[in-house]
Amino acid sequence: MSRKQTIIATLFDCEEGPPPGLDALAGEAGIRHATSAAELAEALPGAQVLLVTDFRTGVLGEAWPHADALRWIHATSAGVDAILIPEVVKSDILVTNARGIFDRGIAEYVLGAILLFAKDMHGSLRYKSEWQWCHRDTERIDGRRALVVGAGSIGREIGALLKAAGLHITGVSGRGRDADPVFGHVHPASELIALLGDADFVVIAAPLTEATEGLFDVRTLAQMPAHARLINVGRGPIVVTDDLVAALRDGVIAGAALDVFEEEPLPPEHPLWVMDNVFITPHMAGDFIGWREALVEQFIDNFHRWKAGESLFNVVDKGRGYGAADG
Amino acid sequence: MSRKQTIIATLFDCEEGPPPGLDALAGEAGIRHATSAAELAEALPGAQVLLVTDFRTGVLGEAWPHADALRWIHATSAGVDAILIPEVVKSDILVTNARGIFDRGIAEYVLGAILLFAKDMHGSLRYKSEWQWCHRDTERIDGRRALVVGAGSIGREIGALLKAAGLHITGVSGRGRDADPVFGHVHPASELIALLGDADFVVIAAPLTEATEGLFDVRTLAQMPAHARLINVGRGPIVVTDDLVAALRDGVIAGAALDVFEEEPLPPEHPLWVMDNVFITPHMAGDFIGWREALVEQFIDNFHRWKAGESLFNVVDKGRGYGAADG
Repeated sequence: MSRKQTIIATLFDCEEGPPPGLDALAGEAGIRHATSAAELAEALPGAQVLLVTDFRTGVLGEAWPHADALRWIHATSAGVDAILIPEVVKSDILVTNARGIFDRGIAEYVLGAILLFAKDMHGSLRYKSEWQWCHRDTERIDGRRALVVGAGSIGREIGALLKAAGLHITGVSGRGRDADPVFGHVHPASELIALLGDADFVVIAAPLTEATEGLFDVRTLAQMPAHARLINVGRGPIVVTDDLVAALRDGVIAGAALDVFEEEPLPPEHPLWVMDNVFITPHMAGDFIGWREALVEQFIDNFHRWKAGESLFNVVDKGRGYGAADG
Repeated sequence: MSRKQTIIATLFDCEEGPPPGLDALAGEAGIRHATSAAELAEALPGAQVLLVTDFRTGVLGEAWPHADALRWIHATSAGVDAILIPEVVKSDILVTNARGIFDRGIAEYVLGAILLFAKDMHGSLRYKSEWQWCHRDTERIDGRRALVVGAGSIGREIGALLKAAGLHITGVSGRGRDADPVFGHVHPASELIALLGDADFVVIAAPLTEATEGLFDVRTLAQMPAHARLINVGRGPIVVTDDLVAALRDGVIAGAALDVFEEEPLPPEHPLWVMDNVFITPHMAGDFIGWREALVEQFIDNFHRWKAGESLFNVVDKGRGYGAADG
């Protein structure tokens, strides 16, 4: 090991195992694996790079005092809320994310959820289980209106796919912008409430920040039409779950497809499990076959830039809490 | 009633009720409703026009001797197999169909079925019913290959939507053709067997004719890759059901989404009901909310052409068994 060899610490969930394919860097860097705060505290001293594949981690703060050489943290997730602890935000450590990798899978999930509702596929599977031949007329999605909340990399891919499938799309995001390649005009978040009343489908693809936490509460949900469905592929805490349960129960909105939750895993006794108008998936919307390998390849690309002294891609704006290119 | 007033006989399923909106023609034509062979025998004498909304009818042959003035039969379905009894085929009676009305709904159904399989939505609903948080990696559909069998009006709409959603599409139909606006080159049916091996999804959108009846038998199904899924939105008898059940059971193919069946309704004890890799809907793929009204509007448009002595649209090539424009 040369004196100048880079050391990469990795933090991953013990059930998941270490990032696949990282061995490709064995000749270029020392790699130290950690799955807990204690292991991370041992791995961090001298490490210039931290690769975090566990987006639910809460241990970074505990091990932080041992980060004596850290220059760069890469998160293999789109959301970086778990990484942006105050110590990281106020440091000059670079943070990058997995921008791009999950876009297409999530967009397909959203389109699938819309068709699940429109074609009453849930009902068809229920009738099938009862051997029942029960004809229904179902909805068409062409011309229906989708409001995409969060027009970053993921939100844009969702918008593009829904548009291609014939829906009318509107984007709302942060401060808004013009001339977006997918949405054209992106409305600022301040216009969200006014836009909800026209939406047949509301898709949350926003990062979890101070501005989005609890954004979909009883007041926001009440603005949606009674026939509308909510699809959350962003982060669970953007929605106030108790308010959503009440809205679904009382017919304030017609349904929800949820890939993310305030508490993950969703507890077994949670009322959402037994609601017929709810589609639940365990935070897997973007996890296409091969995603773990794709994430490591993306990190390795960025690592080679870092070693060469080049600027990194997918740099996160730590103040705003999401990709600098996703404003 | 003037001597020259047109008489329209209608044949519909008694459970469905008469075609909604047909009263709009009350000032222009005498309308006689029938739901059985006996009623049709009473309705036909003197009727120049027959409107058939029951695509499963078998009574036309029985009442045929009473068709003493018939010039035009309109079927409010895409498939006209039940209408094309020998007496109709060899007569000079015009036959028209509902070409166009069901296209978009069926295309959306096919895309929904593809996403149902790719995203394992069936699995997610099953885990939900057990309150189980079970992460899986799922398929992406971009770049996957769909073979559309039957490149008429419906097949083209399916092809266009799947292409817009990122799939690679191939069309096969009758004698084949070039410069199709959706598929480009449409392969002739003689190439079907050779094309199946490349397909991730095989979509049957063909009419039921002598050439397509039983086309998907044990030999044809064996050409599909083991991971491929079959989607039938055409007609049930195009698939040999027993062969399909065996192929699904033995892993010859991975799954099937079926909207049409050899016997409809699918009998309660049928093995397809209990197969986990099968999605079943009761011949409703194209039946969007408002379809019955749309069908009658389309008939009324054509009726006004007929009254004015203009040429009708959606004329069926009785020899080939499908729309003359869908060669």
